[in-house]
Amino acid sequence: MNPRRKSKAIKIGKVTVGGNAPIVVQSMTKTDTRNVMSTINQIKELEDCDCELVRVAVPDREAAEALKAIKKAVSAPIIADIHFDFRLALEALNAGVEGLRLNPGNIGEPERVTTVAKACKERGVPIRIGVNAGSLPRAQNPKLNVAEQMVEVAMRQIRLLESLNYDLIKVSLKAFDVPTTIEAYKDIAQKIPYPLHIGITEAGPPRSGIIRSTVGISTLLYLGIGDTIRVSLSAPPREEVIAGYEILKSLSLRQHGPILVSCPSCGRAEVDIINLAEAVEEELLKIKKPIKVAVMGCVVNGPGEAKDADIGIACGKGRAILFKKGEKIATIEEKDFLVALMAEVERF
Amino acid sequence: MNPRRKSKAIKIGKVTVGGNAPIVVQSMTKTDTRNVMSTINQIKELEDCDCELVRVAVPDREAAEALKAIKKAVSAPIIADIHFDFRLALEALNAGVEGLRLNPGNIGEPERVTTVAKACKERGVPIRIGVNAGSLPRAQNPKLNVAEQMVEVAMRQIRLLESLNYDLIKVSLKAFDVPTTIEAYKDIAQKIPYPLHIGITEAGPPRSGIIRSTVGISTLLYLGIGDTIRVSLSAPPREEVIAGYEILKSLSLRQHGPILVSCPSCGRAEVDIINLAEAVEEELLKIKKPIKVAVMGCVVNGPGEAKDADIGIACGKGRAILFKKGEKIATIEEKDFLVALMAEVERF
Repeated sequence: MNPRRKSKAIKIGKVTVGGNAPIVVQSMTKTDTRNVMSTINQIKELEDCDCELVRVAVPDREAAEALKAIKKAVSAPIIADIHFDFRLALEALNAGVEGLRLNPGNIGEPERVTTVAKACKERGVPIRIGVNAGSLPRAQNPKLNVAEQMVEVAMRQIRLLESLNYDLIKVSLKAFDVPTTIEAYKDIAQKIPYPLHIGITEAGPPRSGIIRSTVGISTLLYLGIGDTIRVSLSAPPREEVIAGYEILKSLSLRQHGPILVSCPSCGRAEVDIINLAEAVEEELLKIKKPIKVAVMGCVVNGPGEAKDADIGIACGKGRAILFKKGEKIATIEEKDFLVALMAEVERF
Repeated sequence: MNPRRKSKAIKIGKVTVGGNAPIVVQSMTKTDTRNVMSTINQIKELEDCDCELVRVAVPDREAAEALKAIKKAVSAPIIADIHFDFRLALEALNAGVEGLRLNPGNIGEPERVTTVAKACKERGVPIRIGVNAGSLPRAQNPKLNVAEQMVEVAMRQIRLLESLNYDLIKVSLKAFDVPTTIEAYKDIAQKIPYPLHIGITEAGPPRSGIIRSTVGISTLLYLGIGDTIRVSLSAPPREEVIAGYEILKSLSLRQHGPILVSCPSCGRAEVDIINLAEAVEEELLKIKKPIKVAVMGCVVNGPGEAKDADIGIACGKGRAILFKKGEKIATIEEKDFLVALMAEVERF
């Protein structure tokens, strides 16, 4: 893996993004922001699954007003998502949000951005310049491809903020097309010192969207690019957070709860590995500690992988060997597989 | 993206792997191979979702014998998965399989591999040298890390086959650990001209396994490495194939059926985008043609992304605009969203 790109650290409330800070997992509420109770409940659900930053759409004044009550009830830093109307950014700041996202494609005149940046500077609140391929400003240089256009739009906004001596900047350049997104981030990563928020926009429902998001985000992380990630799914936001941590765990960039190794099963397996693995995965969702658990179906890789795990089970016909840190600790009967394995996991 | 690594093309029955051939999607049956009917049925299911190569475990002589009847009933090339006993490889060849997979970690003495390679050469049948971190041969150089050990084990087997003037070789080096897997493939990609089968081993059930597999496979593909892919999931094999194509589509490496762009929804949306997107995804599973469909929740990126799609819908309060190739073609009521969108998709 490429070493992580060095970026300037910024603070969004209590959460550091960039520098040597862990790569931050974030999501966004999907409730009507004006519905204070349902929005608070969704933010609490996100906190429960360790979502570290929560973005909230602010489409109108009533939503900006609702932020005051929401802020009082939650502990995750809140980022107000602003489009079109810069005055909503000012109202969100007054409500106490810890971060802003502005879309240069629709925020309008530089004077408006200047007004917002000054208010942010007074409060020490960072701004994400959130460029999106689906909402670029109209007049683009037709000689540039979409990736280059996104970079140009971001750079124009960055230069404006820098001219105001404001540098609490985070940048994103999202497209649905993965190669376009990667090209844009690779380019801007070399041009600016600011932390990067990475993701694939409008990636779709979980079945296809998790894969598209993972392809884009993991490739960028492998290249050393990305300080905070958001998996965009047409699904409850909790799913975005779970997927985000799985990406980071797969690249050994963060620990977060258990890791499950399980074989795909094949004509060699003599027990129902697919159902056993799914049952173990369900049980592991309740466990917070980082522990590596292996569920293996046969003698080929079974003992090898099970040994490498903290707790592992290598199944044969009707019975299995239970391993702990490479040591066989018991032989168990098929009816006890799940219970015996989970008992060891709890005990570990 | 890096240009694809140049590799020697080999033919597994009617399917070319390597060279300029499209990256091949493969899977493996999970039925008891000796149960001929259930194995044939699963292979037909795999053929139905465009699985291009099917691997079948051959744990004993009865399974090898079953291959004869299986071969007669299916059209996808069959690869026999052999561990421990080289005689099963010879029997599988007699049953007519188009490919073999040998695990150097357990196949035993060079003389045995030599016997198998000679039989393969007579028939023009390729061998995959399938190294797995969980089943390396016992005596490994302790100064080498796991990635280096996997490469060394593969290279020893490759040199043996080359010394027999046999070059219908494909290689895989799979670990559960993604960085280890990537390191191993990057190394061997520079050492040999043969096509590479890529994947992450024992990646787990779908929730975590799809992400882990996608992280490993997509990063390698981005680096230009990989001629055939297998997504390993503790799940029905059909899920592996669907995931495999989604990875290839996300990197624009292959077309395969529809692509769905859909927004994650947020506090700005005035319709239930999550349910609409999932319903559209369900409907699109029935459609084979490559078509890009967008389901967007609001005016921010909605019209931009919907315009870029073949057929798109950009929703507002209670109604939406239907787009076709960038042109507005209708305004539709909320109750008609799904039906009107799918009617246009069918017509396209």
